[in-house]
Amino acid sequence: MTLEQLDFLLWLAIQEDLGHGDVTTDSVVEQAREGRAVVIGREPFVLSGTKVFRRIFELLDPAIQIENFFRDGEKIQPGIPVFGLEGSLKTMLTGERTALNFVQRLCGVATITSKMVQEISEYSCRLLDTRKTTPLWRKLEKEAVGHGGGTNHRFGLADGVLIKDNHIVAAGGIEKAIEKARQCAPHTLKIEVEVDDLDQFDIALQAGADIILLDNFSPEMMKEAVKRNNGRVLLEASGGVVLEKIKAIAETGVDFISCGALTHSAKSIDLTMEIEFASSS
Amino acid sequence: MTLEQLDFLLWLAIQEDLGHGDVTTDSVVEQAREGRAVVIGREPFVLSGTKVFRRIFELLDPAIQIENFFRDGEKIQPGIPVFGLEGSLKTMLTGERTALNFVQRLCGVATITSKMVQEISEYSCRLLDTRKTTPLWRKLEKEAVGHGGGTNHRFGLADGVLIKDNHIVAAGGIEKAIEKARQCAPHTLKIEVEVDDLDQFDIALQAGADIILLDNFSPEMMKEAVKRNNGRVLLEASGGVVLEKIKAIAETGVDFISCGALTHSAKSIDLTMEIEFASSS
Amino acid sequence: MTLEQLDFLLWLAIQEDLGHGDVTTDSVVEQAREGRAVVIGREPFVLSGTKVFRRIFELLDPAIQIENFFRDGEKIQPGIPVFGLEGSLKTMLTGERTALNFVQRLCGVATITSKMVQEISEYSCRLLDTRKTTPLWRKLEKEAVGHGGGTNHRFGLADGVLIKDNHIVAAGGIEKAIEKARQCAPHTLKIEVEVDDLDQFDIALQAGADIILLDNFSPEMMKEAVKRNNGRVLLEASGGVVLEKIKAIAETGVDFISCGALTHSAKSIDLTMEIEFASSS
Amino acid sequence: MTLEQLDFLLWLAIQEDLGHGDVTTDSVVEQAREGRAVVIGREPFVLSGTKVFRRIFELLDPAIQIENFFRDGEKIQPGIPVFGLEGSLKTMLTGERTALNFVQRLCGVATITSKMVQEISEYSCRLLDTRKTTPLWRKLEKEAVGHGGGTNHRFGLADGVLIKDNHIVAAGGIEKAIEKARQCAPHTLKIEVEVDDLDQFDIALQAGADIILLDNFSPEMMKEAVKRNNGRVLLEASGGVVLEKIKAIAETGVDFISCGALTHSAKSIDLTMEIEFASSS
Amino acid sequence: MTLEQLDFLLWLAIQEDLGHGDVTTDSVVEQAREGRAVVIGREPFVLSGTKVFRRIFELLDPAIQIENFFRDGEKIQPGIPVFGLEGSLKTMLTGERTALNFVQRLCGVATITSKMVQEISEYSCRLLDTRKTTPLWRKLEKEAVGHGGGTNHRFGLADGVLIKDNHIVAAGGIEKAIEKARQCAPHTLKIEVEVDDLDQFDIALQAGADIILLDNFSPEMMKEAVKRNNGRVLLEASGGVVLEKIKAIAETGVDFISCGALTHSAKSIDLTMEIEFASSS
Amino acid sequence: MTLEQLDFLLWLAIQEDLGHGDVTTDSVVEQAREGRAVVIGREPFVLSGTKVFRRIFELLDPAIQIENFFRDGEKIQPGIPVFGLEGSLKTMLTGERTALNFVQRLCGVATITSKMVQEISEYSCRLLDTRKTTPLWRKLEKEAVGHGGGTNHRFGLADGVLIKDNHIVAAGGIEKAIEKARQCAPHTLKIEVEVDDLDQFDIALQAGADIILLDNFSPEMMKEAVKRNNGRVLLEASGGVVLEKIKAIAETGVDFISCGALTHSAKSIDLTMEIEFASSS
Repeated sequence: MTLEQLDFLLWLAIQEDLGHGDVTTDSVVEQAREGRAVVIGREPFVLSGTKVFRRIFELLDPAIQIENFFRDGEKIQPGIPVFGLEGSLKTMLTGERTALNFVQRLCGVATITSKMVQEISEYSCRLLDTRKTTPLWRKLEKEAVGHGGGTNHRFGLADGVLIKDNHIVAAGGIEKAIEKARQCAPHTLKIEVEVDDLDQFDIALQAGADIILLDNFSPEMMKEAVKRNNGRVLLEASGGVVLEKIKAIAETGVDFISCGALTHSAKSIDLTMEIEFASSS
Repeated sequence: MTLEQLDFLLWLAIQEDLGHGDVTTDSVVEQAREGRAVVIGREPFVLSGTKVFRRIFELLDPAIQIENFFRDGEKIQPGIPVFGLEGSLKTMLTGERTALNFVQRLCGVATITSKMVQEISEYSCRLLDTRKTTPLWRKLEKEAVGHGGGTNHRFGLADGVLIKDNHIVAAGGIEKAIEKARQCAPHTLKIEVEVDDLDQFDIALQAGADIILLDNFSPEMMKEAVKRNNGRVLLEASGGVVLEKIKAIAETGVDFISCGALTHSAKSIDLTMEIEFASSS
Repeated sequence: MTLEQLDFLLWLAIQEDLGHGDVTTDSVVEQAREGRAVVIGREPFVLSGTKVFRRIFELLDPAIQIENFFRDGEKIQPGIPVFGLEGSLKTMLTGERTALNFVQRLCGVATITSKMVQEISEYSCRLLDTRKTTPLWRKLEKEAVGHGGGTNHRFGLADGVLIKDNHIVAAGGIEKAIEKARQCAPHTLKIEVEVDDLDQFDIALQAGADIILLDNFSPEMMKEAVKRNNGRVLLEASGGVVLEKIKAIAETGVDFISCGALTHSAKSIDLTMEIEFASSS
Repeated sequence: MTLEQLDFLLWLAIQEDLGHGDVTTDSVVEQAREGRAVVIGREPFVLSGTKVFRRIFELLDPAIQIENFFRDGEKIQPGIPVFGLEGSLKTMLTGERTALNFVQRLCGVATITSKMVQEISEYSCRLLDTRKTTPLWRKLEKEAVGHGGGTNHRFGLADGVLIKDNHIVAAGGIEKAIEKARQCAPHTLKIEVEVDDLDQFDIALQAGADIILLDNFSPEMMKEAVKRNNGRVLLEASGGVVLEKIKAIAETGVDFISCGALTHSAKSIDLTMEIEFASSS
Repeated sequence: MTLEQLDFLLWLAIQEDLGHGDVTTDSVVEQAREGRAVVIGREPFVLSGTKVFRRIFELLDPAIQIENFFRDGEKIQPGIPVFGLEGSLKTMLTGERTALNFVQRLCGVATITSKMVQEISEYSCRLLDTRKTTPLWRKLEKEAVGHGGGTNHRFGLADGVLIKDNHIVAAGGIEKAIEKARQCAPHTLKIEVEVDDLDQFDIALQAGADIILLDNFSPEMMKEAVKRNNGRVLLEASGGVVLEKIKAIAETGVDFISCGALTHSAKSIDLTMEIEFASSS
Repeated sequence: MTLEQLDFLLWLAIQEDLGHGDVTTDSVVEQAREGRAVVIGREPFVLSGTKVFRRIFELLDPAIQIENFFRDGEKIQPGIPVFGLEGSLKTMLTGERTALNFVQRLCGVATITSKMVQEISEYSCRLLDTRKTTPLWRKLEKEAVGHGGGTNHRFGLADGVLIKDNHIVAAGGIEKAIEKARQCAPHTLKIEVEVDDLDQFDIALQAGADIILLDNFSPEMMKEAVKRNNGRVLLEASGGVVLEKIKAIAETGVDFISCGALTHSAKSIDLTMEIEFASSS
């Protein structure tokens, strides 16, 4: 996402909240009033969204000063200032909610990712995101997964071949699906096939898949697949991946674990903006 | 949100996932292949997002037929078909993820709202949403709150005066803030003031607030505020509202309870699209 | 209207006039030629549109220097320089018409508003605009009303409940309309009802309207309504408000007078840009 | 203006008024309620804007039926239905103001144009508009001039060479300006020169102008210019053209009279939408 | 490219040519005049752009009837009707140039592609396009390559890893570049490396490239690379590929030949629209 | 084309190539790596596109430094640096292809134009472009024609009356077509008529055309037309204009020669970007 694309989305979001104006702040706060503010968390979290936070306020008011006390990916304790703002009070009050709505979610994604990555840190296995992202925020959420230590799977439908159950039925079987993909899909893309059991796994392996996705396999089935594969192709596990079970999956020896909950069910981090008023003597 | 505005957002979302094309489906599924599909839930939920679901597929392919088996707001059991699709298999496979990403979230919002509303159904108190929505989806999420039986608070900064702590400090006190708002804000809007304790409550009541928001009050403090108010202005409770505690809040006699978690922390509902292939004899 | 939104509209306006280029200026004026210019009025007026004037030229040419000799809302005599420009002659000639088309209209709105406000200055009554604005320029025209000393009514359909005759018929009477609005409209908005005679007025007052709009009442009827109201709700007079009659309306004791002509029939102010050429020795 | 471009502007205008929704109509009028309505004028006028009127309602609701009882350019008496609407009451109430804001202005332009054209109908002279249009509505306003019987001058800066006083000074005299335009401007465009007196007129005629604009000439000076021209080039009169004086200008024998007031100072026509409710038995 | 995205680009193109209106056709052709037309080529060609041709006219005028006598990819002799049009003459005259500007170029791309593919038809080698496309028309030009029998390389920078000379220097050598790509690039993408000579080729093969691009290799060097590769990875030849030399390249046994000239230097096909006028008896 | 409009098109082009990111450069090149680069040609050419080249990189990265060693319109020998870049290596690698795709084409247009202009330099005849441009790049390509020494014909359908064969048939003959255009087209535009033979030529001359386009005339016919015209109107030759024949056309004495091949069949110039790496010691 180039800066221009990001700004476009942020403007839409600002306009959504702002409409024709912030009637409270415009009425109650003097135009020229200046101040400082900090954003702090009320729980520990991994930071993501620094670029978004800064741009929202800059778009509203090029004169405001934003300071990042941390970089994306850092772990932050509650009560520690994460962002500093200095400038127009009206700008701060008007942009606060939109900025926090973004950053709270993105920090939530980075934080759950980080916890899962921590769980599997002693294995070579890597944690992947999925396409189960919030519509319009895929790039930002995938960056947040990266800030949490995760790895990005394909961005969308155009940059990866992933043959799922419905594709297999439509094509008339795994072999035919792989054969068609080999003929028609860009030669620069690997071919990944989702399988439901070990029989399908064997067929996919035989038919020349480059990556095999083990969907809802038990750890025992995963181990068997790893054994049969013997290092030939990349193996990815998915389905019902939660913090409590991820270590057991990583132990099976699969190369990747993909987890939709990183983005579709991340809990927002509780952040608050605290404004410091200069004494108006 | 007019249809045009909705379509604009849905196209952005489609393009985000689709990029320059669905290389898997384009390679593996024949252009002319037709079929049927249904969407079912794997858990009980309250429906929201029927309009979004339909438009995403229609935008991709005007020839596809979408059937709604239920209306927004209905409670649906797991395993029951919610949507039916008939037409191009390629369209279904290409639109599936984007459509479900929306609907799963919106049903999540409607479902948690419905649970909370159910908890307080014996009281006259109403459940409100907040501005803590997913950026760009405020209208859709506020509609989902409605589908769950909740009531919408102001849409954004332009259609409600809500004087919060920082506004009060900036204005030099509650009385001055209310006075300025009375002078400068549109005369068509009521003036709501957020208070942190009963002393502030008394001042706001005295100064002529139309609505008072009791922020992080204990149930006892709420009861006292209800008593002191004696029906004069509307009272809204907020802060740390969760399913387990909401009934106790409603019991205090406040008019409204507002809850950010309805939108910022709703859990996605687990939906799946099942495709039925005609035998290709 | 944030700067971004304003710029978007100004760009559309510039492109409308400029098309693929200013063939006269491009042919006749040397690229590098610089100069100064001033804008003056040929009649007395109240200024509005300084932000628009500046941005149009800045969008065409970031190097141009614009000086504001007055602020929005000031009364200006004919022949006095209002804006100064310094920089590329081509930029001045290319932007002149679009800039003046805006500013002449906005000054017209501010000027007629100011005259009307002057008429009623000895009363506490305030002058309101309406939604009868030039499509796409509502925010600018409402700001111009403010520069003339007027007060803004609701911005649009989303931020005020105004129940008019057709709504009343559709709802089945004033009481039912107010009751439905009380139930369904956001609790942050006051409820305004338009009435045609004193019988309707009594019903609206009884039914709990927050504001009552007296449509096409004679001054005598207005006085009677003020008397019956006895300070309970806000009263707004509208219908056929012209400069000659406004004082008599204000005398009746209504709180607000709303006037569509402020925006739909304001006369453009006659402004001219005078360019000063450096001697080309 | 293609339909697509018109729709784009109309959507912007609809969104400006509608925001996130029509809270009055949504609260007070039942979703399914249907009805009929007509638009009538309260004064005689020339019609313009039928396309705009229709599209605004169609964009809001493709199911609504709009009937045009007259065509653009027809003269209409007060009290006669101009448009008929049939369908959703909510659509009518929501679209009414935006539609009328457009059509009232456009009819105003057509009406004043028609009056002026009538004044000069016995002369071969034609009435021209100018670039003094409402920003963003140039195409619509120029069409309205046509509906009133007027003729369009150049659309914008790209499709006509018009050398004005500042261009002349910048170029170093009328001859040099014409020479540069002859060399550099597209050969498909005629060259028009604005002159302030008869001396300049002679120079422009001599230097090969294709059209000469007589700016603020007295009728006597115009007659002299017509005489000196002797049919060689087209003559256009401008400056202070009002209804009372236009006939005297036409009598001088000029080919064209251009008048900015057609668009910058047209008075809105008083139109009203009357809704007919089916008895809800 | 979804239909919506295509329409957006086509509208921009239509507006570019049309501006505020087709002054010739609007003046000279009666609004209601109808007719038929055909488009024919003046040289043999391979068809591409049928979708574009149809949409341009449909966007201008939904009532026009377009008939495709052939499908994209078919070879067409001069003088044979390719498209038929029936409806408004004005629409045909207004849309003609924009439609032909597109289709002539796209047919040019399909035609040169087809000639090259024909040359190598007896080899298993496939012809690839590149990113040297006309800005904004990549999707259309890549489809045209497909219509000519060619195969698409990666669409853009996001859906293929192609390590070129500058990347190699920046990374510190071929091995390091491949290693970094293996670590950081999406695991769903193959890694292609561009090499300039056989030494680099050996290194890339050794380091685990999935595809090797032989840049400006002589046929002898290509043969040697094919031999050393022995079927392990895919080989792509590029650099100076012209019709006269392509067969010799295919003979070497490489898997792909990529050719920028398919898109950056395709010669437009000479097409003409012939209008048939009904006798206006 | 104002800077804003250019930026809009350049962003679309950047996004087309960049998608969600440059996976190769992002993986292989360190974020902070800086360097220098130059662009050189591998053949002689006339420069066009300096503004485009600069903006593409500036849009990607405001910190990059671009140096123009030449101005548009200059003739440049192979191997000479045309542009210099200094800054982030990643920016250079990511923007390279899109920037070159533009500039190579624009230089191609300027170069072929320059060659043709050179051929006819001893005649007063001027070389014109046509509307056969690449959709969306008309302004840029017309500027490139200017950089090559050519002259621009009308920009589009709105700024020139050009009556072609189909218009003539639709109008019922040349005289009627000219008469209608005289009545209805803007009086600021000259009327150009395309004729196929000398009989039509005589009619057009007689009927008062301002410019006559001699379509596919032989040089002998052109000479005869020039003779019959005797300097009365402007004459433009078109049809099958190629470098080899253009001198013979100019000799006939026509005022203009228009050539579609300048834009629809210009050969891209072979440009390359060479990156200089600082030694990373």
